[in-house]
Amino acid sequence: MTVLLALDAGGSTTRALVLDLDGYALGRAAAGPGNPTAVGVGPALAELRTAAHAALAAAGRRADDVAATVLATAGSDRLVGDREVADHLGLPRASALRRVPDLLAMFHSAAGDADGTDDGTDDGAVLVVGTGAVAARVRDGDLARVAGGNGWLLGDPGSGFWIGRRVARAAAADLDGTGPATALTAAVLAAFGLPDDRRVQRGRALALPGLVDAVHAAAPVRLARLAPLCPTAARAGDAVAAGIVTAAGDELAVLVRAVTADLHPAAPLVVGGGVWRHVVGPAPAGALARALRGRAVVPADDGLRGAAVLALRLAGRPAVRPRAAAAPPARP
Amino acid sequence: MTVLLALDAGGSTTRALVLDLDGYALGRAAAGPGNPTAVGVGPALAELRTAAHAALAAAGRRADDVAATVLATAGSDRLVGDREVADHLGLPRASALRRVPDLLAMFHSAAGDADGTDDGTDDGAVLVVGTGAVAARVRDGDLARVAGGNGWLLGDPGSGFWIGRRVARAAAADLDGTGPATALTAAVLAAFGLPDDRRVQRGRALALPGLVDAVHAAAPVRLARLAPLCPTAARAGDAVAAGIVTAAGDELAVLVRAVTADLHPAAPLVVGGGVWRHVVGPAPAGALARALRGRAVVPADDGLRGAAVLALRLAGRPAVRPRAAAAPPARP
Repeated sequence: MTVLLALDAGGSTTRALVLDLDGYALGRAAAGPGNPTAVGVGPALAELRTAAHAALAAAGRRADDVAATVLATAGSDRLVGDREVADHLGLPRASALRRVPDLLAMFHSAAGDADGTDDGTDDGAVLVVGTGAVAARVRDGDLARVAGGNGWLLGDPGSGFWIGRRVARAAAADLDGTGPATALTAAVLAAFGLPDDRRVQRGRALALPGLVDAVHAAAPVRLARLAPLCPTAARAGDAVAAGIVTAAGDELAVLVRAVTADLHPAAPLVVGGGVWRHVVGPAPAGALARALRGRAVVPADDGLRGAAVLALRLAGRPAVRPRAAAAPPARP
Repeated sequence: MTVLLALDAGGSTTRALVLDLDGYALGRAAAGPGNPTAVGVGPALAELRTAAHAALAAAGRRADDVAATVLATAGSDRLVGDREVADHLGLPRASALRRVPDLLAMFHSAAGDADGTDDGTDDGAVLVVGTGAVAARVRDGDLARVAGGNGWLLGDPGSGFWIGRRVARAAAADLDGTGPATALTAAVLAAFGLPDDRRVQRGRALALPGLVDAVHAAAPVRLARLAPLCPTAARAGDAVAAGIVTAAGDELAVLVRAVTADLHPAAPLVVGGGVWRHVVGPAPAGALARALRGRAVVPADDGLRGAAVLALRLAGRPAVRPRAAAAPPARP
């Protein structure tokens, strides 16, 4: 029996879903990071293969049964050609393969819900805030404008890295007296397992060199894991933490405005990403609140459902939606 | 004949000076980076040895002639013990060795000039702006308070890295439309040898992915080399570039104020570092101009002369100053 394969490869997890031509989920699986920008082409292909074959096994199907595959990932342009990807996944030569940006899959995961249609929506915008931050205007089903997403060194203002770095800098500035006192300092030192020793030696707080060493010992993007300290401290009344969340919202508002300038208010603005869900999304304030006001904001968990939507289209089933993909049921 | 050895080990160059007990320069030499934080302990010790022995050879002296050595470097605490350092340099066991922070050597390189005394000055402040940015209050000849200098990831606001990263981000924001147009964009693309292609594909300027890749391919601190693009563009009337220089000055003003709060206006504020000399120092504006107003600002090239001042003190010659160290003459 013919099946479809949807793959959503992120910087930490690769998700795979096998579905039938009526949109029913038959099997799903997950594997490690499958984003070639994050881990390199070879490891990414290996994780994609692992996830795909596990989902096929869960569905009781073989790779030969796959008629169409949609692979959603950032940096998919870095992968080798479609044929090499298909060969690596063990897919039949006659099957269709489409690679799409992860942003587009995220958009299609949720966009159809906004206007109640069954065939998905091809116009709108999407904002994803995780370790990075990126937004896009979607027009006629493709990316018409991308803002942000240039990586931790060059861009991604308002992202998890951006927030986490501000949290660490606020602690360092508190310790060396160039910034205000903040509850984040104790929280950051605790997060690194460092003693909170404020005594001064040679003009410097004793806790500071340890913090500097600990931060520089890890990959810079790891600072993103400090981002969740911010809303916790802000809720407890810490002004520095609240200021960082507000400043992140100001930066994200720039991204939102850049991709919604010509968008009808009723068109979907899909939002997702872990830092959106846990740090900035729960209580948008200031410029971000203003940028979202009156918009049809639709949350999305990841791009897997959107990849399934696009796989159905690729198989010539544009009117079918993977309704069962969000919570995998047995076929009735 | 007894001689003294002064070593100033920076992140890019190690400088060595051999002088006699009357302060006259006998020989000097340079070697590669000798900062153990920047390059590791083993390579740093090797460069120190190379510089020291070349300076001794230039002076026609041997390591056995050295009565006292002062080694100035950031991160000197990371080196092994004094005895191991002395052994590695081939210095006699009976000779004296003192390791001092590079900031302190920079201070002593110039501080004596401010009040016209011959014996150096032990109270004042120092600001060094290079790839990093750090300031210190010097009291009784030692560091009483250090502000900044926490590395590119955690701190160093207003530094060469900080400015260079803002320059690169301004170019990226210009290219993806989230920031204003700026002459920095063309200058940054040229600095990376990239074509200035603003045509849009899949919602993104064609020049942007190349810029992102080029920036991430090098060590983050290498962004500091973009800092000099800023004053050039600012002088040509670019508002974005001028804004970055002003913002850097605002950050440096925080460092200056933190270390001069209790300092008499006539006490020396020693300033140095390549980014100070070429980017922010030539025309301080705004908050930085206000923080410097009425201060006895004294420029210093590096810490070598200060290391020589401290070597004379270490040898019991506190009233002698290495007047010849700035421009090595023959002894009259």
